Amino acid sequence: MSKGTVVLAYSGGLDTSCILVWLKEQGYDVIAFLANIGQEEDFEAARIKAEKLGAKKFVEDFIWPSVQANAVYEDRYLLGTAIARPCIARSQVKIARRENAQFVSHGATGKGNDQIRFELTCYALYPEVKIIAPWRIPEFYNRFLGRIDLIDYAQKHDIPVPVTKKAPWSMDANLMHISYESGILENPKTHAPADLYLMTKNPEDSPNTPDVLEMEFTNGVPVKVTNVKEGKSKDSPLDIFSYLNEIGGKHGVGRIDIVENRFIGMKSRGIYETPGGTILLKAHLDIETFTMDKEVRRIKQGLGIKFSELIYNGFWYSPECDFVRHCINKSQENVQGKVQLSVFKGQVYILGRESPKSLYNEELVSMDVQGDYDPCDATGFIRINAVRLREHHRLQGVSTIKK
Amino acid sequence: MSKGTVVLAYSGGLDTSCILVWLKEQGYDVIAFLANIGQEEDFEAARIKAEKLGAKKFVEDFIWPSVQANAVYEDRYLLGTAIARPCIARSQVKIARRENAQFVSHGATGKGNDQIRFELTCYALYPEVKIIAPWRIPEFYNRFLGRIDLIDYAQKHDIPVPVTKKAPWSMDANLMHISYESGILENPKTHAPADLYLMTKNPEDSPNTPDVLEMEFTNGVPVKVTNVKEGKSKDSPLDIFSYLNEIGGKHGVGRIDIVENRFIGMKSRGIYETPGGTILLKAHLDIETFTMDKEVRRIKQGLGIKFSELIYNGFWYSPECDFVRHCINKSQENVQGKVQLSVFKGQVYILGRESPKSLYNEELVSMDVQGDYDPCDATGFIRINAVRLREHHRLQGVSTIKK
Amino acid sequence: MSKGTVVLAYSGGLDTSCILVWLKEQGYDVIAFLANIGQEEDFEAARIKAEKLGAKKFVEDFIWPSVQANAVYEDRYLLGTAIARPCIARSQVKIARRENAQFVSHGATGKGNDQIRFELTCYALYPEVKIIAPWRIPEFYNRFLGRIDLIDYAQKHDIPVPVTKKAPWSMDANLMHISYESGILENPKTHAPADLYLMTKNPEDSPNTPDVLEMEFTNGVPVKVTNVKEGKSKDSPLDIFSYLNEIGGKHGVGRIDIVENRFIGMKSRGIYETPGGTILLKAHLDIETFTMDKEVRRIKQGLGIKFSELIYNGFWYSPECDFVRHCINKSQENVQGKVQLSVFKGQVYILGRESPKSLYNEELVSMDVQGDYDPCDATGFIRINAVRLREHHRLQGVSTIKK
Amino acid sequence: MSKGTVVLAYSGGLDTSCILVWLKEQGYDVIAFLANIGQEEDFEAARIKAEKLGAKKFVEDFIWPSVQANAVYEDRYLLGTAIARPCIARSQVKIARRENAQFVSHGATGKGNDQIRFELTCYALYPEVKIIAPWRIPEFYNRFLGRIDLIDYAQKHDIPVPVTKKAPWSMDANLMHISYESGILENPKTHAPADLYLMTKNPEDSPNTPDVLEMEFTNGVPVKVTNVKEGKSKDSPLDIFSYLNEIGGKHGVGRIDIVENRFIGMKSRGIYETPGGTILLKAHLDIETFTMDKEVRRIKQGLGIKFSELIYNGFWYSPECDFVRHCINKSQENVQGKVQLSVFKGQVYILGRESPKSLYNEELVSMDVQGDYDPCDATGFIRINAVRLREHHRLQGVSTIKK
Repeated sequence: MSKGTVVLAYSGGLDTSCILVWLKEQGYDVIAFLANIGQEEDFEAARIKAEKLGAKKFVEDFIWPSVQANAVYEDRYLLGTAIARPCIARSQVKIARRENAQFVSHGATGKGNDQIRFELTCYALYPEVKIIAPWRIPEFYNRFLGRIDLIDYAQKHDIPVPVTKKAPWSMDANLMHISYESGILENPKTHAPADLYLMTKNPEDSPNTPDVLEMEFTNGVPVKVTNVKEGKSKDSPLDIFSYLNEIGGKHGVGRIDIVENRFIGMKSRGIYETPGGTILLKAHLDIETFTMDKEVRRIKQGLGIKFSELIYNGFWYSPECDFVRHCINKSQENVQGKVQLSVFKGQVYILGRESPKSLYNEELVSMDVQGDYDPCDATGFIRINAVRLREHHRLQGVSTIKK
Repeated sequence: MSKGTVVLAYSGGLDTSCILVWLKEQGYDVIAFLANIGQEEDFEAARIKAEKLGAKKFVEDFIWPSVQANAVYEDRYLLGTAIARPCIARSQVKIARRENAQFVSHGATGKGNDQIRFELTCYALYPEVKIIAPWRIPEFYNRFLGRIDLIDYAQKHDIPVPVTKKAPWSMDANLMHISYESGILENPKTHAPADLYLMTKNPEDSPNTPDVLEMEFTNGVPVKVTNVKEGKSKDSPLDIFSYLNEIGGKHGVGRIDIVENRFIGMKSRGIYETPGGTILLKAHLDIETFTMDKEVRRIKQGLGIKFSELIYNGFWYSPECDFVRHCINKSQENVQGKVQLSVFKGQVYILGRESPKSLYNEELVSMDVQGDYDPCDATGFIRINAVRLREHHRLQGVSTIKK
Repeated sequence: MSKGTVVLAYSGGLDTSCILVWLKEQGYDVIAFLANIGQEEDFEAARIKAEKLGAKKFVEDFIWPSVQANAVYEDRYLLGTAIARPCIARSQVKIARRENAQFVSHGATGKGNDQIRFELTCYALYPEVKIIAPWRIPEFYNRFLGRIDLIDYAQKHDIPVPVTKKAPWSMDANLMHISYESGILENPKTHAPADLYLMTKNPEDSPNTPDVLEMEFTNGVPVKVTNVKEGKSKDSPLDIFSYLNEIGGKHGVGRIDIVENRFIGMKSRGIYETPGGTILLKAHLDIETFTMDKEVRRIKQGLGIKFSELIYNGFWYSPECDFVRHCINKSQENVQGKVQLSVFKGQVYILGRESPKSLYNEELVSMDVQGDYDPCDATGFIRINAVRLREHHRLQGVSTIKK
Repeated sequence: MSKGTVVLAYSGGLDTSCILVWLKEQGYDVIAFLANIGQEEDFEAARIKAEKLGAKKFVEDFIWPSVQANAVYEDRYLLGTAIARPCIARSQVKIARRENAQFVSHGATGKGNDQIRFELTCYALYPEVKIIAPWRIPEFYNRFLGRIDLIDYAQKHDIPVPVTKKAPWSMDANLMHISYESGILENPKTHAPADLYLMTKNPEDSPNTPDVLEMEFTNGVPVKVTNVKEGKSKDSPLDIFSYLNEIGGKHGVGRIDIVENRFIGMKSRGIYETPGGTILLKAHLDIETFTMDKEVRRIKQGLGIKFSELIYNGFWYSPECDFVRHCINKSQENVQGKVQLSVFKGQVYILGRESPKSLYNEELVSMDVQGDYDPCDATGFIRINAVRLREHHRLQGVSTIKK
């Protein structure tokens, strides 16, 4: 008799292939869910269509809100893996509910962030679900101590083993980025080998002439990107983001090598490449500051940092993340306009910007024209700001003398 | 009879040269104070020595605390001008006190941030001082409506006028950066001309091979930089910073084009190049996250943002800035170690890091070794984090049904 | 010929009566605007109706958002004056626009917060307006050096002078509170005289039995208050707030004596009584924490503090205050339910609460029932939270030994 | 053979008495540690001395830093239990280390905060320690399902059972406060019975005349308290705090009834009485705002909220709490002076204050004297603050027209 049905987040790799068989061995019925697909169609066309559907959702529902937030964890990481997890788990939960499966399972390790992101999403959207995390089950992890054990098990059960030589690190790829960690990268002093990067060209080998792009934003998200020289443009979310990946990848944009703090309190070393996301971050920062009130920006900056921490820690589906997302989205109402930028040798250079909603007032700020501004006002402004500083100094003076 | 003595922050340019003469015309005794110098020596050697003294102070007292703070205004500007103002005004006030001058004066415009930074410093350190800001005095600014009027006045008073053709923008340079604004740059859509930059090479023309540096930090400030290939190293603050400027400049590092929010509430467009500071920011971010506890880092990140706003707004000498600086300095006690990085074509790439004080524990985080960590604990951790999310979902479910 | 039309915020007191005449003397046409009224009707009924209209607006548009925010400045002041200013100035601007008046004027002093709150509202809602602030105009303030000068002027111009003896302090009253400052209160050591308070009874003389109220909230604002013993209830905003004032006043609730920091950087001593507002703050804090998710609460708490500072400083009508108000309002969607409390001798005691939207789960939290909770999970939760602390300790140990 | 030595935090109550015997049954050697004592002396005098030693440490090392921080969790709870846990656990760890015990144990439940506070302290100070939490061990909690089981077990093992009738709630008392929860209080709507409170008098029965105190602070902590009418004063930390408890208790000060958010994500209802702590909070808020710069105060307020959350969640011994405590302590350097207050019928009224370090400047703020202040400056201050608001309005106007 079956112990019940498990929906497994299946990647096609060695780990989840073995988990699939192992779960069956344990007496479960298993539904393998390949992220971004959700069907078991055999036909290539249907698969591609499904993939695009998943990718489209990923861009619109997860990448775009992150762009609005300028989401960056610990000042550097653009959260490419962190936003993918709730996207995958959301679909998995949908299938589990549809199929009346009481269980979900995944192949994430017991030391990482992904297990948390995955499971918090499942609990949030399907509170009664039971989660099977084999890499935290002693029977499992004591049986499969290394890659050799998995390969043996795979061969015994006729699981096709990827023939490609395993890289001496692990990686995770999605439309937004690729992350690399573990293996030889665990020594934080070891430089990443040049052949590690798959999504971006080495800037040393990238083109010697820049591409110049014009990005158009509405409500803080890109609605069009145009290659100024080539005249080519894209205007659907998925096309825009894919094109930015292409241009960013071609010019080696978005590589970082960092040590970050995991939610569980360990420091870990990760290498990431986020070509399109990096271009978008720079362009959005520009148009946002151009169009958003200064003090709104300060408050929103704090909310964006909070948002980034929530995403990193796996709380995409949480009341606080809903709340922050709502607030950030509200802040973007006037973030509209065009940014021109060039992409070259790993770097993005902002060149100029324009907007019908900008608070920039050329006449007001001009050094050559007075505009609606009386410089004498600044005297009072400064003197009032100094009231407190002068009092402080006087008190200190008094204290010093008394001592 | 003299109206009193004025210490004028004199730059040697057209504006302050005219102001100097104009102040005399108004009946003041004027002491011209050339920043970073403070003497009227004629001898080149003495001048250079004094300059270095000023520069050394600038690096140690102003740039280093900013490095500790990862000070960045509105996510992009490294505050090169903003930290120079209190440094200059501090010296100016010292002279004013020594010379019993009741007045100080400067050539900053009435729409900018610098007048504020300058004057708040003066009021904070010399509360009784009287400030003469000619560009806010109608008699002055109505008399000198354009550059032509200043040149006329200069010629009439035998003030030497710089013969070089004036660039169609204004600039401000110091050891940390050069800023460019006004003139043709006031249109935020206009691209900066290629020949604008003086401190950094155009990345298109920069070397085709990177320089690799090793930066050593103690207490969150650099104590040594070594060019790994050349074996050359520097170890005094001024030498280190100057060398980073040299390397950063050679590779076109640290150029940004932004619209920022001035303290007085206008948006203004600025172009900055901060070669050494940009390298330092990246290196410091790396070593800091490597060695600092995660939660201390979060709190300190907030203080760093506050610090940046205070600096930008001119409050370097204020009780709150003293307080924040003290706290940030405290946070840097264990920020110690070495970062390896490469500099190439406008970009800085972190390659690796090591530290005797790192909280990074290779065994703990390893995917191959269990270390002092029980993966089962993560189950409880996740489930407890989910308590709240599951309750929220249930309530929502109930609400939804009720509706 | 008239210099133009001025809408004066007229209070009926000595200052604004003199200002009215003085403005006419200066050649202006003056419209006296008596806050909350806006008409020059003579009929008592119309006046009362208009007053109620103003008061209703004040409660709904200004007090209610402050209740949602738990708005408190510097941990103690409930902002009764601060929220009244934008309410008054909004009406004044409306009249000025309707009457094509280019000027507005007020009687606020040049050292206080009210001038700022008043004028920022005017500039925000009517950017072209010109403001006449007599207490900042040397011709005015040098002419009227003390109260005597005003009285003389009043008598000379047949302005009726209030016959009541002037209290040795100034006060400002509205529906929400009365503030007392200046005069003998300027010495921060001087105790407030017992007869100062007008809105609340001295707790020493207040009733010896409490009143018990039940407050019902929807969207974070009260929709009904019931006196449990008397069975009496109120359910319109103005009635609810007035009744809370009555009960709070009867029991001496809401008196504070503080030194606060004005926006202009001075410290000033103020005494406030806010009977109804104090009851509401306590009740709202209770129902909010009962119904709001913990992490939403933390974020919202920060926004509430920001909101309070904005209100205090006069930025009610600003993009950032709009933004924060929107976010706070969003946070209140589920803040619904009933709070029982007693009011007695200056204090408010929460007795109990209930809500259809509470995240409180009696079974989950019970010490006697396990509920949907496995205590073993807490072990993992704690151990993972300790990972970081244990690493920190080890590093410290190592450092200590090395030293 | 013994399984090892356990240091048990023993309270003398039924639970920990049974745990003591149960641990022995399981094969452990047990050292019972009675908090604040630490010896097994039989002599009353030695016990009292030891108790005082513990209490003194509790006041100086835990209560005083909380006073400096104005530590309040979720706007109401003064953290009386939360700061006691690390104090107790610190001593327990000290004994464990001294006695070479590998284990510590406690009687806290599996749903509460105390288990976390207790264990995080142990892990932080003694990373290798093993923790036995019986209420999270199925063998234990399945055996002792209710109080009856514990009593049976106690009688079987000759454990003296407290003869007093158990109250229908649980309580936790220390020098700072008593907390009440569970049992009939689990229904958040149920009013607390009048006889629940042990530390404070019912305000309805408290004296009809206030006590007036003068509190003197140095470095943000009280150094002396004087009863103004009686002339009596106290000047050691323990005496001061005990006296404030006495006065506060006599007048019914510091009772609250709240629903709070536990760290583990549940909402729970708690009733607290904190007489001395409540008086201190009010007095400290007063002297702090009187002496601290406005902007330092804003930053420190945020740190104080952070500190409160850290304490509540059990992170007293953590790098971030060390950091925040250091910063807060630094902020208190000038928090010095005297506050006069009256205590009456459950309320604390601030009457006046004085300080040699106050930034309050009576002449500067006076409405009757101009002082070193030019009211015209305020015009410029306001107009510059309005620049942004006016621009915003104009843009909105334009947008509205365009729509």
